[in-house]
Amino acid sequence: MKNCIIAQSGGPTVAINASLAGVLKGNEQSHQFGTIYGALNGITGILNDRLLNLSEKIDTIPNFIEKLKVTPAMYLGSCRYKLPTIESDPHTYQRIFDYFHEKDIDTFFYIGGNDSMDTVLKLSDYAAKIGSDVKVIGIPKTIDNDLCHTDHTPGFGSAAKYIASTIREIAHDTFIYAIKSVTIVEIMGRDAGWLTAAAALARTEYSTAPQLIYLPEVAFDKDACIRDVKALLEKTNNVIIAISEGIRDSKGNYVSAAEAGNDTFGHSQLSGAGKALEYILKDALSVKVRSVEVNVLQRCASHLASLTDLNESMALGEKACELSTEGASGVMVTVNRTSDAPYTTEIGSFDIHNIANEVRNVPREWINEAGNDVTDEMITYLRPLIAGEPEITFEDGLPTYLNIAHLLPEHQ
Amino acid sequence: MKNCIIAQSGGPTVAINASLAGVLKGNEQSHQFGTIYGALNGITGILNDRLLNLSEKIDTIPNFIEKLKVTPAMYLGSCRYKLPTIESDPHTYQRIFDYFHEKDIDTFFYIGGNDSMDTVLKLSDYAAKIGSDVKVIGIPKTIDNDLCHTDHTPGFGSAAKYIASTIREIAHDTFIYAIKSVTIVEIMGRDAGWLTAAAALARTEYSTAPQLIYLPEVAFDKDACIRDVKALLEKTNNVIIAISEGIRDSKGNYVSAAEAGNDTFGHSQLSGAGKALEYILKDALSVKVRSVEVNVLQRCASHLASLTDLNESMALGEKACELSTEGASGVMVTVNRTSDAPYTTEIGSFDIHNIANEVRNVPREWINEAGNDVTDEMITYLRPLIAGEPEITFEDGLPTYLNIAHLLPEHQ
Repeated sequence: MKNCIIAQSGGPTVAINASLAGVLKGNEQSHQFGTIYGALNGITGILNDRLLNLSEKIDTIPNFIEKLKVTPAMYLGSCRYKLPTIESDPHTYQRIFDYFHEKDIDTFFYIGGNDSMDTVLKLSDYAAKIGSDVKVIGIPKTIDNDLCHTDHTPGFGSAAKYIASTIREIAHDTFIYAIKSVTIVEIMGRDAGWLTAAAALARTEYSTAPQLIYLPEVAFDKDACIRDVKALLEKTNNVIIAISEGIRDSKGNYVSAAEAGNDTFGHSQLSGAGKALEYILKDALSVKVRSVEVNVLQRCASHLASLTDLNESMALGEKACELSTEGASGVMVTVNRTSDAPYTTEIGSFDIHNIANEVRNVPREWINEAGNDVTDEMITYLRPLIAGEPEITFEDGLPTYLNIAHLLPEHQ
Repeated sequence: MKNCIIAQSGGPTVAINASLAGVLKGNEQSHQFGTIYGALNGITGILNDRLLNLSEKIDTIPNFIEKLKVTPAMYLGSCRYKLPTIESDPHTYQRIFDYFHEKDIDTFFYIGGNDSMDTVLKLSDYAAKIGSDVKVIGIPKTIDNDLCHTDHTPGFGSAAKYIASTIREIAHDTFIYAIKSVTIVEIMGRDAGWLTAAAALARTEYSTAPQLIYLPEVAFDKDACIRDVKALLEKTNNVIIAISEGIRDSKGNYVSAAEAGNDTFGHSQLSGAGKALEYILKDALSVKVRSVEVNVLQRCASHLASLTDLNESMALGEKACELSTEGASGVMVTVNRTSDAPYTTEIGSFDIHNIANEVRNVPREWINEAGNDVTDEMITYLRPLIAGEPEITFEDGLPTYLNIAHLLPEHQ
């Protein structure tokens, strides 16, 4: 019986370990792999011979797969390493495949975003080129939700749930004062506005906050924004604005860059778009303005994960396992939505050549005409992705996750 | 049967509505008040005749008291209004007590922090002065935990739980890269470091993060900090630093102010202490440094509240009700710890004259000698305060809270 290697790459999400758990669960049923190895820190774990024996973890850690499912970020660590082209550096490819051969590898699973799918593409192309029977299968993840040919990406639903929950709580925090104020919430997403759009889910029967939503897909018009805020402040006290970190003006310049200053040390303060808009509105209005950068919490808050997201991420891992049995390679597993309500999906797969290096932005028709809100179609799309709460184990009042000592040099 | 008025004031916490719920629950048992009114936006609701009939809410909203217990921020809204002294403005006091008389008020309950306790002090003094039998009782709340004569304050335990949970999740996020990095987490607390100290609870068997903790109670030594970080980076990859927003150098200057620059508009960028330390460390080290400002989330994230905190806050509200029956006035209800393990407390009260305008800082002996961490005594003190998770109702994937339309001008 041959073995497999799994690795994780790119920025963390709350669901990327659920996909890893899915591959492990798949093999619990199919027993197709003798030993499942995890490569530490993505593809660099293969180049540097740093493997973790995951089969051993399953045997020695009680409920390992279930715990893995709800542990944030990457159990195997990550890397930001882009493979060179095969033509420019065949030696690296040869090293990788020699390593696969040495470890008797049947399949290499790579869980990641766009760059990782580029790695899947290159490795599967190389395998075909040299006639290797090592299969290479991609499993998506990214809170940006910008991969093509999948209804959405693992990790996005949980991040969306975090954004919407948090903005709802910020609204309660903001509404307590009977004075005029503006609160800007800056959300991740340099090019695609999916996650920022999820802010709309925070609305309730009593609150329209966030009253304004700006995505990077539409050029940001400073003057229109000021007008919008002024109009809102005539009707209500507290305006909440959700903006993507990547909003740009009509010339394509980042709002954050345009408004950045220099600090006393001469550092260019490339403060976020939120800070930049804070200063724009402070200049234009005579009300309290503050900005909140949600920062890394939106991608690592497992305590507020979407159960739908975790379940699907796990199903994608299982599907990847199944595809390997069927001999597939050079594919990425995908989620295909078959109905909005009731929400139903099928897990499928797609040729990696159609996915890698392609980006899916928010369609213009899912943004309102004024470019300051999303449409009902967007809400219908988003709503089911955040449903359900996983059971998180709390000990001494805190969420407990899997021990990741193997990632830390002081424990090695 | 006479009535009562309750109001809330100061900055929001996750537990301040639980104390309001406690007063309502107390009256469900004692039936001492005919109608319970809420004054909207603190004491200004009395000055502006803006009352909400809470007795009616209990009758018309199913499970109102239970829902109130887990709803963040202030159901009655807040204000930042400091009462003038009795001598300087007797007219305002007369107006307030005329209003109490008109509404047939037996007791005024004020839930808040230091400034609100000053209001309790002044109103109870005024009542004594004019021989009014209106009772005035204070119920504490503040995430800063800086009120005297109570073991801790409502709201603090939940904020502490949020900080520790979040830093634990940020550690998982940070540890995935096998490159050197420093992450600074800026935590609320201008003068008292209690909440920043709670970052220590994030530690696990595999992680010592946050490896450094700086409180405002000890002068911040920039050079010592740089040395500490350098030493840590020799042993490990990812250093997490928890700092209070209020850290100051040996001359008493805020670190944030010292490092602030000007942006292109000439705004003095009084960026937070986190940003300031980020630049200090970027200058001194050649590693990736980033800062995360937890911001308002730490005081409004009901989805991560401490059940111990909510239960105690509610018990304090009930106790306030009981004290009123006994004829007490000019007091604040308090939590007195009787044992650390098992954690036991008694609910008591204390003369408001000993509480208002006094501040309780972290004792120096609960901070380590180097001033860059807290001691085991601090951990023992903090641990029980974050225990337990309340049941939060999720609908469509999001936490649902009480409708606060009555605070919004567009609904009035």
